[in-house]
Amino acid sequence: MAGKETPDLENVTIDDKFWSPRVRRTDTATVEAVYQRLVESGRFENLRRAAEGTPGDQQVALENRMYRDESDVYKWLEAASYALSRRSDPDLEARVDYVISLLEGAQCDDGYLNSYFSLHAPEDRWTNLTYMHELYSAGHLFEAAVAHHEVTGGSRLLDVATAFADHVVDVFAEGGGAPGHQGVELALVRLYRCTGQRRYLDLARSFLDERGREDSWFAREMGDPDARLCTDAIYEEYHDLLFDGDGTYDGKHIQDHLPVREQSKAVGHAVRATYMYAAMADVAMETGDDALAAAVERIWTNAVNRRMYVTGGLGNSHENEGFTSDYDLPNDTAYAETCAAAGSIAWNRRMAQLTGEGKYGDVMERTLYNALLAGVSLDGTRFFYANPLKSDGESHPLEHVSEVRFPLQRREWYDTPCCPPNAARLLSSLGEYLYLVDGDELSVELYAGSSVRTSVGGSPVRVDQTTEYPLDGTVEISVRTDSPVEMTLRPRIPGWCSDPSIAVDGEAVAPDVERGHVELRRTWTDGDTVTLDFPMPVRQVQAHPEVTAAAGRVALQRGPVVYCLEGVDNDAPLETVCLREDAAFSAEYDPDLLDGTVVVRGEATLTATGDDAALYRSRTSSANATVTVTAVPYYAWANRDESEMRVWMRACDCTH
Amino acid sequence: MAGKETPDLENVTIDDKFWSPRVRRTDTATVEAVYQRLVESGRFENLRRAAEGTPGDQQVALENRMYRDESDVYKWLEAASYALSRRSDPDLEARVDYVISLLEGAQCDDGYLNSYFSLHAPEDRWTNLTYMHELYSAGHLFEAAVAHHEVTGGSRLLDVATAFADHVVDVFAEGGGAPGHQGVELALVRLYRCTGQRRYLDLARSFLDERGREDSWFAREMGDPDARLCTDAIYEEYHDLLFDGDGTYDGKHIQDHLPVREQSKAVGHAVRATYMYAAMADVAMETGDDALAAAVERIWTNAVNRRMYVTGGLGNSHENEGFTSDYDLPNDTAYAETCAAAGSIAWNRRMAQLTGEGKYGDVMERTLYNALLAGVSLDGTRFFYANPLKSDGESHPLEHVSEVRFPLQRREWYDTPCCPPNAARLLSSLGEYLYLVDGDELSVELYAGSSVRTSVGGSPVRVDQTTEYPLDGTVEISVRTDSPVEMTLRPRIPGWCSDPSIAVDGEAVAPDVERGHVELRRTWTDGDTVTLDFPMPVRQVQAHPEVTAAAGRVALQRGPVVYCLEGVDNDAPLETVCLREDAAFSAEYDPDLLDGTVVVRGEATLTATGDDAALYRSRTSSANATVTVTAVPYYAWANRDESEMRVWMRACDCTH
Repeated sequence: MAGKETPDLENVTIDDKFWSPRVRRTDTATVEAVYQRLVESGRFENLRRAAEGTPGDQQVALENRMYRDESDVYKWLEAASYALSRRSDPDLEARVDYVISLLEGAQCDDGYLNSYFSLHAPEDRWTNLTYMHELYSAGHLFEAAVAHHEVTGGSRLLDVATAFADHVVDVFAEGGGAPGHQGVELALVRLYRCTGQRRYLDLARSFLDERGREDSWFAREMGDPDARLCTDAIYEEYHDLLFDGDGTYDGKHIQDHLPVREQSKAVGHAVRATYMYAAMADVAMETGDDALAAAVERIWTNAVNRRMYVTGGLGNSHENEGFTSDYDLPNDTAYAETCAAAGSIAWNRRMAQLTGEGKYGDVMERTLYNALLAGVSLDGTRFFYANPLKSDGESHPLEHVSEVRFPLQRREWYDTPCCPPNAARLLSSLGEYLYLVDGDELSVELYAGSSVRTSVGGSPVRVDQTTEYPLDGTVEISVRTDSPVEMTLRPRIPGWCSDPSIAVDGEAVAPDVERGHVELRRTWTDGDTVTLDFPMPVRQVQAHPEVTAAAGRVALQRGPVVYCLEGVDNDAPLETVCLREDAAFSAEYDPDLLDGTVVVRGEATLTATGDDAALYRSRTSSANATVTVTAVPYYAWANRDESEMRVWMRACDCTH
Repeated sequence: MAGKETPDLENVTIDDKFWSPRVRRTDTATVEAVYQRLVESGRFENLRRAAEGTPGDQQVALENRMYRDESDVYKWLEAASYALSRRSDPDLEARVDYVISLLEGAQCDDGYLNSYFSLHAPEDRWTNLTYMHELYSAGHLFEAAVAHHEVTGGSRLLDVATAFADHVVDVFAEGGGAPGHQGVELALVRLYRCTGQRRYLDLARSFLDERGREDSWFAREMGDPDARLCTDAIYEEYHDLLFDGDGTYDGKHIQDHLPVREQSKAVGHAVRATYMYAAMADVAMETGDDALAAAVERIWTNAVNRRMYVTGGLGNSHENEGFTSDYDLPNDTAYAETCAAAGSIAWNRRMAQLTGEGKYGDVMERTLYNALLAGVSLDGTRFFYANPLKSDGESHPLEHVSEVRFPLQRREWYDTPCCPPNAARLLSSLGEYLYLVDGDELSVELYAGSSVRTSVGGSPVRVDQTTEYPLDGTVEISVRTDSPVEMTLRPRIPGWCSDPSIAVDGEAVAPDVERGHVELRRTWTDGDTVTLDFPMPVRQVQAHPEVTAAAGRVALQRGPVVYCLEGVDNDAPLETVCLREDAAFSAEYDPDLLDGTVVVRGEATLTATGDDAALYRSRTSSANATVTVTAVPYYAWANRDESEMRVWMRACDCTH
């Protein structure tokens, strides 16, 4: 591997005020909640029936579109495996083994595994790659298997995965299609790294290379009546997404519009996109493919400079669950799918691995602390699918859209429940996102109270990070080593921080930023300590003027955390609140609010116009009232009674 | 009739700078354009086939949902008849006669007339009242027939109408249903006034009384498989509109949720609603039904104080083409259907007739000069269905909704083309909306250069109104009479005007406003003249603070005309434009702009924040630029190149 490596999860321990409770809740409440939903939705029952080979009475269990149902089972297995890396839990272990047994039973002799097709349409395997998600599901199996193997050392799930992967290689190694929903590519790279089997990497690259052909696989399939495996409604939905009004194929929705090396914009379905971009970085890393690396950097620049919410959320439109055009970032209808946030974090970590640049860690933390974390309730059992930046607290402009993914409160489950187990596996593997190792360099990409054991330049070393980040901007990094070790410690300097201070063993070091990091090269002895201070004033942030939805507005941000106002904390209608440029804000940790959080308070001007019955009247010159407003982290919104919410507040910035 | 009467159209002549060209364009370009679309869409061909009684090859002509196709034919006949009141046009007369012949031929022996049912499902007549629109179409026939009779004196169309109306009386006089789409009620009252046949008025009242029963006709029909005369998709659409998620019937969409006398809010489909409310006023007027009058006044107060756009537009949501909740008035997705504006004008005139209050004329003129007029292009040949108050000039948030009714430019026609001929018949009968007569009172409800001949207190009198309103606020009203006449002249004092001045024969009169009018009672002799001056400064208007979509914003209004900014006149992105409270505005007539209009210019503050590539950054304190902005009447927007448009502009009104 040419890029920077992530230490194994078992070698990273998280122990701090902010993340420890969240990881614990994920390991327990979330893993439990998702398991129960998997039981209730018949996913295990279908695997059992597929194992028996007797389709029988499938109606109840087949209510949903089962062709991608195992993907949720696999994500749960992955999250449960990570949980087992931190604690012994015989009940959970037994559940994991039970689910693996179901998978072993349901797997066909040739390695194929998908209960929908086995029960429902065994003859139709691999005949519809555009929307039947067989490869997407397979990818999640491969990821779960690697996680399970790394954590437990056991090979049962890995054997299932490699048998299926070998079957996939047999079917697709000579071409013959690509996944309509990406995800299998990065999973194949992961399986390759775990097993050393080059054929998995080759297939990942081959899948990328299949996209954007003039004679598109997907266009051909959509025109082939034999490949229509779904209801007319689903077919029409995909047809609308993949063809222009005049019937011309436009593969943007599935990133099939251009060969990947020629792509330069973030387009189409955001989850498909981020998974594919992550795989592009992976394959570029493993193969030294510069054209692939250049393409994914171009795409990243477009995404981050023109198509990303201030929360890090990606994919603005519910119509295509994805990207539309530059600067089109509506607030109340922001889709910003939780899965796309997870995909973006995975993508950005790989970009950091590929390049060593700190800007990817900036996006990773922006996304983690805002778009991703908002997807899960504080108690870990309810989830948002879409993550809007504005709510009126009573209804949603898209609440009548057939598949409602904009509830006012997080829900236990969705018809397409991709997000809950995806958020779980991301949070339960957070340790893999903190550090990167490359030769004698150790980069700190995310700040979290933690400890990592690794080998740097051949020497074993432990690095302890002590911090309450993002509650507070002070970070202490101590090196623990039996003998002095020559290495470059590379703490990332967050892009949001304008005045960092750095000291090594108490002596100030100039904050010279190289590729987004300070590079501290020296011989480190046991107990050497780096102190980082990233002051966290409350900042008013504004968007590029072409972002219409944020024009004349500001958002509040403290450190990497984006804040919002909620009606439950503020009496005034939020649209009447106006923030002055010189407004002072306080930030204070409140242990009782929202499970303990830093609450922000400040002065605002009210532009309320009275409560007179007339709907329209001449503008009045009444003096405006000044009020104190209270802001809470966006990630914690909608954990109390339903009420209004705004990220972008009106800015008072006229100069008359 | 107990209410105030409208003089016959033939006794009102419009001759002024603002309206004459518009009425002329309606009489010619619009009547011609709609006729051509009726030909092209097969509407006449279907009538011909129905006349022949040989269904034959109907496929092409039956592409649309033909069950309400005749309604457009009838509206065209009504508009064409009005046009013939002003000018002799043998070609148009011949077309009118031709269409009447088609209708005579297509009418069944028992009076029934609807080519869809005759050709397609003769056995299914009257079996589905909820959405098959037979009664709605019949209503438009009755209106056209009265108009044609009044203008031409001929009875051919009236004979067709009364034969059908008598058939409808036979079918429904003893109960047995009500129209799923209202409109026939007010038409029956009109037919009653024309023919003196009380049974038509009785049926109108009976249709109103059928609504809101515990055992709803419509709920029963929707549950009856035999009544399903449409595709599953249309049935499902209506089912979603009429039943809650749990399957409970909720008749609000068709105003069937409560008996009409118990209703108090404007709910459901806005066109159905306004037509029904107009009929409630009509029936209250004719029968002295105080409970009905009180209900419609309650509903009006709710609509006007909580559910009306500043343009007068009604019905905010495309989902139900109607009302949602108080103060929910989004700008870019405003539905504000052109037909609902026409319905509202009809309703408000009847409220004025019923009560004599001036506030109804205020809403009538607000709606006429803004929501209604915006529905028609300046050349009279293209039409808006929905009338949003904001556009980004490039796309619309709802452009992917299956039936696109939010184009960026007016269209020649729509799949459901109710609006084009509806706007035509309203504008071509404008003369009926200017004056009301009641005993020895003559009320002037709308200002327009015009002349009316009528009888006041038994004496023939002519009143000449000379004005360029709304271009200018000066109005001169002269009484022309052979002998002195004792009467009360009641010019309405517009609600938007804070400082009217009034003089009679040059002598100032105190502007004592009674029920929205000044009541000038005296003995008038030939040449007596009332001079009214309604100063028209450019006003900044604000909305009730609960209107989220207008919070912190102001609209520009001059006289009754609401202005908007268009990108084509302004370089700055419109969301960066901020209007100061003390900004000065000029208003100047420009004969070359938009067929001649008063253009408004003023100073605004720009809050643009530079053109740096970063998507998000800390709020900067750069000084803001001052620019001159140009506003044009909202009614004239989208008549040039596609560009941004805003009615509600950002207000600078912080006081720091």
